[in-house]
Amino acid sequence: MTALTVLSALETATGLNADVERTLDLIGVFAFGLSGGLLAVRKSYELVGVVALATVTALGGGVTRDLILGATPPVAFENLWYLVVPLIAAALVFVGHEQIDRRLHRSVMLFDAAGLGLFCVTGAVKAAAFGVSAVGAVLIGVISAVGGGIIRDVLADEQPSIFRPESTLYAIPAAVGATATAVTWNNDWYSGTIAIVTAIGVFALRVAAMHFDWRAPRPVSRSS
Amino acid sequence: MTALTVLSALETATGLNADVERTLDLIGVFAFGLSGGLLAVRKSYELVGVVALATVTALGGGVTRDLILGATPPVAFENLWYLVVPLIAAALVFVGHEQIDRRLHRSVMLFDAAGLGLFCVTGAVKAAAFGVSAVGAVLIGVISAVGGGIIRDVLADEQPSIFRPESTLYAIPAAVGATATAVTWNNDWYSGTIAIVTAIGVFALRVAAMHFDWRAPRPVSRSS
Amino acid sequence: MTALTVLSALETATGLNADVERTLDLIGVFAFGLSGGLLAVRKSYELVGVVALATVTALGGGVTRDLILGATPPVAFENLWYLVVPLIAAALVFVGHEQIDRRLHRSVMLFDAAGLGLFCVTGAVKAAAFGVSAVGAVLIGVISAVGGGIIRDVLADEQPSIFRPESTLYAIPAAVGATATAVTWNNDWYSGTIAIVTAIGVFALRVAAMHFDWRAPRPVSRSS
Repeated sequence: MTALTVLSALETATGLNADVERTLDLIGVFAFGLSGGLLAVRKSYELVGVVALATVTALGGGVTRDLILGATPPVAFENLWYLVVPLIAAALVFVGHEQIDRRLHRSVMLFDAAGLGLFCVTGAVKAAAFGVSAVGAVLIGVISAVGGGIIRDVLADEQPSIFRPESTLYAIPAAVGATATAVTWNNDWYSGTIAIVTAIGVFALRVAAMHFDWRAPRPVSRSS
Repeated sequence: MTALTVLSALETATGLNADVERTLDLIGVFAFGLSGGLLAVRKSYELVGVVALATVTALGGGVTRDLILGATPPVAFENLWYLVVPLIAAALVFVGHEQIDRRLHRSVMLFDAAGLGLFCVTGAVKAAAFGVSAVGAVLIGVISAVGGGIIRDVLADEQPSIFRPESTLYAIPAAVGATATAVTWNNDWYSGTIAIVTAIGVFALRVAAMHFDWRAPRPVSRSS
Repeated sequence: MTALTVLSALETATGLNADVERTLDLIGVFAFGLSGGLLAVRKSYELVGVVALATVTALGGGVTRDLILGATPPVAFENLWYLVVPLIAAALVFVGHEQIDRRLHRSVMLFDAAGLGLFCVTGAVKAAAFGVSAVGAVLIGVISAVGGGIIRDVLADEQPSIFRPESTLYAIPAAVGATATAVTWNNDWYSGTIAIVTAIGVFALRVAAMHFDWRAPRPVSRSS
């Protein structure tokens, strides 16, 4: 409540709205970069593999979103931070992957969940701002959030984790967040504060799904 | 003959041309959605996997076509039917996959062949209407027809069926149909009737290839 | 030195600049087409697989570059040579793969290195000409150079060779070449001659990496 008031005041006073979104977006880029780099280490890749997989995972969802929207060249090719942040993530993994994997595993999962929460919101907002229909905006929000991870797994010749039954709920929190964003946008309720609240909600839903091992329903089957 | 006359009359009388193409297009989307959903079931995916693979298979070829043409955002993100139809296919697979797999296997293959026939035509037409050269239109027609299936197999970590020797002719009928479409378009013979006839021809060629187990030639080899 | 003088004179006298780039670009397309076709033979694909994999490998990097730049439809769908050259490569592989694999293996690797050198330059130049930032142009140059090979390996259900430790330096020479190109472009030193010199430099670096089995550094590890 107080936090929301402060945030609203900050937005009004400083016009920081875009900067808040950009900052949180880059946190998501950083988290996804770590996850890509760590998978590269697990696959015994060397420097090029670590940098490439970290960068592709960090930027893949946003680049796909921008290509679908026709917003070319994608922001990742124009704004230097979108290249620097994945490189920092790759460097951290390259030097300190043993520490990250052992002690920071939980932090990485939390960052990943934060990225998921934010990308589904910023993806849906960007799509809506481009005049895409509400349903299209939801779809683009989900693609932004899960695209980087899918590209990471395909390039590393792994089954995409989004499809694995044991991966717990991943796409569903993103779909909920993107839907909430599209609905608030279309009713003129959207604001930076709403964006943060929605991202936090998706983050919480994702963390709860991991903690309680929630699973999506399986296809109806008579025999099992 | 009578059917063609009726169709031509319908086109002239009602301007239904676009609606006929759209309807047949959505039948193709539905068929590809079923094939994606069924592969997800075979891979033991849960709800998210079934919905995601059905949607991606159904829409992948058309979205790729639109991105190549610069027709952004792709029609699949703007027209609600392109999202509703794959979801219906996914729901049918989710609830009734045992019935579909056992009793409707032939129907699915026939729907898939129908989708192949139609997507190669509508893809080539859309490309030609965007002013792409005849050869480019053929290529885009083929990509529209086979793209969804390739994306389906890559995401499911399978060897794309288009490459498997035992998959019988798949891309060749699509290339024939796209070529026929581009040629008729460039000579101003194209019409909705021609489109339907071409799609039916591709469909028949594909079904015949499956029935008689026709194979494409293999690389020249002295030893075997 | 003499060669450079001749080239410069040629450029000035004939305005052949674009033609030189186009010709070298198509040599790269041809080389990548051979590599794709040969992988298809190794995977026991038939005609469709050989043609498809040769074409996708030859054109994948350039199409990705053009989609990122919003240069739609990509040049590969407009200029007939970009379709004819991969088909020639596919036909050569289809008929003569045993000769190519045995006697021409070295030639293929050299052509591939030439393609790498040229695509990183032409990709970066095209990006810079579209007004992309220098860093973005470097990234797009690298993607142009390595994109076709990655798509080839993903479609063939192989681990992308760019990630394999034993593949020796591949992306790094491309990054060096793209950087050199972006720097010369932004300082108005760029010319067709510079392009050729840079491409030759990347080619030499790649060949040296293969010959001396240079490897990229591996992630820091205490235990091994």
